Amino acid sequence: MSFNKNQTWLACINKKCNHKTDLLNERKFRCPNCNSLYDIEHDFSLLNKDFNDYKKIFDERASHATGNIKNDPRYTSGVWRFHEWIMPFLPVNQIVSLGEGNCPIIKAGDNLKKWIGADINLFIILEGMTPTGSFKDYGGTVLMSIAKAIGIRAVACASTGDTSAMAAAYATSAGIKCVVVLPRGHTTSTQLAQPLVHGARIINLPGDFDDCMSVMQELIKDHNIYPANSLNPARIEGHQATVFQIAQAFEWSLPDWIALPIGNGSNCSSIGKGMKLLEKFGIKKISKILGCQSEAANPLAKSFKEAKLNHKKNKQESFINHWEESYKPIQAGTTSATAARIGNPVSRTKVMREITHSNGTIQTSSEYDLNNAVTQVGLDGHFVCPQTGTALAGVRNAVHNGDIKKNETVVVVSTATGLKFTDRAAKNLEKNIVNLKTCDTKTVAAIIKK
Amino acid sequence: MSFNKNQTWLACINKKCNHKTDLLNERKFRCPNCNSLYDIEHDFSLLNKDFNDYKKIFDERASHATGNIKNDPRYTSGVWRFHEWIMPFLPVNQIVSLGEGNCPIIKAGDNLKKWIGADINLFIILEGMTPTGSFKDYGGTVLMSIAKAIGIRAVACASTGDTSAMAAAYATSAGIKCVVVLPRGHTTSTQLAQPLVHGARIINLPGDFDDCMSVMQELIKDHNIYPANSLNPARIEGHQATVFQIAQAFEWSLPDWIALPIGNGSNCSSIGKGMKLLEKFGIKKISKILGCQSEAANPLAKSFKEAKLNHKKNKQESFINHWEESYKPIQAGTTSATAARIGNPVSRTKVMREITHSNGTIQTSSEYDLNNAVTQVGLDGHFVCPQTGTALAGVRNAVHNGDIKKNETVVVVSTATGLKFTDRAAKNLEKNIVNLKTCDTKTVAAIIKK
Repeated sequence: MSFNKNQTWLACINKKCNHKTDLLNERKFRCPNCNSLYDIEHDFSLLNKDFNDYKKIFDERASHATGNIKNDPRYTSGVWRFHEWIMPFLPVNQIVSLGEGNCPIIKAGDNLKKWIGADINLFIILEGMTPTGSFKDYGGTVLMSIAKAIGIRAVACASTGDTSAMAAAYATSAGIKCVVVLPRGHTTSTQLAQPLVHGARIINLPGDFDDCMSVMQELIKDHNIYPANSLNPARIEGHQATVFQIAQAFEWSLPDWIALPIGNGSNCSSIGKGMKLLEKFGIKKISKILGCQSEAANPLAKSFKEAKLNHKKNKQESFINHWEESYKPIQAGTTSATAARIGNPVSRTKVMREITHSNGTIQTSSEYDLNNAVTQVGLDGHFVCPQTGTALAGVRNAVHNGDIKKNETVVVVSTATGLKFTDRAAKNLEKNIVNLKTCDTKTVAAIIKK
Repeated sequence: MSFNKNQTWLACINKKCNHKTDLLNERKFRCPNCNSLYDIEHDFSLLNKDFNDYKKIFDERASHATGNIKNDPRYTSGVWRFHEWIMPFLPVNQIVSLGEGNCPIIKAGDNLKKWIGADINLFIILEGMTPTGSFKDYGGTVLMSIAKAIGIRAVACASTGDTSAMAAAYATSAGIKCVVVLPRGHTTSTQLAQPLVHGARIINLPGDFDDCMSVMQELIKDHNIYPANSLNPARIEGHQATVFQIAQAFEWSLPDWIALPIGNGSNCSSIGKGMKLLEKFGIKKISKILGCQSEAANPLAKSFKEAKLNHKKNKQESFINHWEESYKPIQAGTTSATAARIGNPVSRTKVMREITHSNGTIQTSSEYDLNNAVTQVGLDGHFVCPQTGTALAGVRNAVHNGDIKKNETVVVVSTATGLKFTDRAAKNLEKNIVNLKTCDTKTVAAIIKK
């Protein structure tokens, strides 16, 4: 065994319930008293370190991050660089890492800035440049390290995309079996490729994706199957590294805004949780979270808007209560941002908590805008997924409605590489293909020089 | 203008010719006297620095590589970190970078080690974790920086894959037009997606890929079109960063071997050129280069083998002459390693020079082995391209024939992400898909636990 329940434990997120349990023995990840999700908590006081101590450790490790022969994931992984904040009591030799998390934070290019149309300091952290091509690897490395430490033999998930790729890659690296449950006839060969290459078993079921999710819920509840879905709070711990990296890049301060797409909400939950930790250790100002959803799947944006209206009328009550009351699951419609096509996000309560705490807001992007955002950033040389498009379009909306002010600094989390969405990306661009009937070099030269 | 011809210039690689010319004015990249390729050369003495000075500068920059708010590519790019060795006289404000080159150097996993079947210290540098998903970005950032500095308005290339993706992304970022020449009916929509997303114009021609290459040669020769192909030696300068990164990771020493796939040979040329620079500045021992080709496209491996036989008979002559004499272009056959399906590599003379100088060797991998290598490394959690498979299988062959000895250290250059080859990768793995007729959770649980 690795750590004990006095060092790291699970706490029910429902503050009225406050149930606590042992992370190492937990398999269902739902509070038995109130069915809420769990947070992972650590007793940081046992480490006996202050903010300056941590900064010194993390800065030293970063200096070897882009290449070193130490076989120590605290140096080679941009997640485990923050070992003491992510999973401090997990022994280093139990870490399962694939070299994730050293993603570049780049300045936005001219096309995107022009499209957004305001003087803001815009950065993008490109989390598609990870082992499996999406931000899920930040959480996967932590989930699978814990699964390995506690002797789990098989993990499962229902996912057509990034989660199944991540689960399969980290599971096989850890020597753990991985099973992906999918709806027959609703997946493409591209979506199947990553789990298959990483040795996962795929189980095709009749019905649609929601049917697979129901089976997955029962597998966890009744059959003790260990979940790789974001219900598992180990993932949330790893995703916090995004905000730690941003803070480190900004010389241990935070930008005015962090913008990101919201599907099930694990990424947003993690950004918020990580910022609270930074506050606890002494960072002066945290970022406002800008959550972004598409029109087709915006249950959180919709209820946020309603709650804002209600809130003005009853100032004595806290905003989060209004938001929770306004919230209703929706039937998600069709969108290019398929990975966030979710009508009832698993981590919705955490999202509400974190956006409210950060004094942030939430935006809905139209289908036209989110696709246009992908196009604009493509013309700056970055190929991003449609979910990133939601976040970029959300920034544009927030600039236009005055939430984001002139000269503010914004970091957008780009959640996956566009290489996972090639078919869709090229669809409207065929006008840029010229067909010539002969191999006439002069004509070709004329087209090039035109 | 940026630098002058007394700082950086082009030199014909044919030592008997020795023609020199100005990089900033060159458009054809073939020596007018003997039609050979060029090397880029710099007067490093103008920098007035020794090895220790350089190491200090590069180590300091690496310490900010994974995140910083300086908008200075020497900190954010793993290529431009080595500015003084790559393109020392190019002003920093003329650099075109997309955040390339901070790729992880990871220890090989258990499946691969077992498949190779010997006690060697095996590492992989994962150069698929770049902006466009392949190692070409290392060269692209340098090529496009120079193109921008000298005011080029359009670049062109004939490429179905990584080169066209790289050229399109860096060109649009530099505000330069990019044209890709392709054979109609011989490309997939996936191959077209990246250049289209990055705003390139695609010209479809009748015929096959060789016809497109001929048109491309004429465009350079007769129409002053600036080439993004590896004929352009600016690319070679950038690819050197791979060996500089490896040296830095190994605390300014080099492993016994560097193994890599050879297509046109730009990567191999660069590794060799970079190592010569390291020798010049005082590194004690350079790596032996292990060049790797597939059975379908092995003109260099074939002629190397023949030259080895001849060489024993005539020891007084230098090996490289035998190799050049034995060399014959071949008609490339069918292979999964499509990006290296080249029967007459452009940079063959440079490859011969560098492998010979490094005291290295060259291996042919069977189709079965190179695909199997991709499978094995997939089961360690890394999704690599078939060209990387050629290099991994080459390492296995070199271990088995005794070239690579027990306990030697080998770094394999993985040249692209498997995400560009999903269809092929999943092809033989469909046996891992289980089809169930009902959504019966018990049956699913039984399969998972089996």
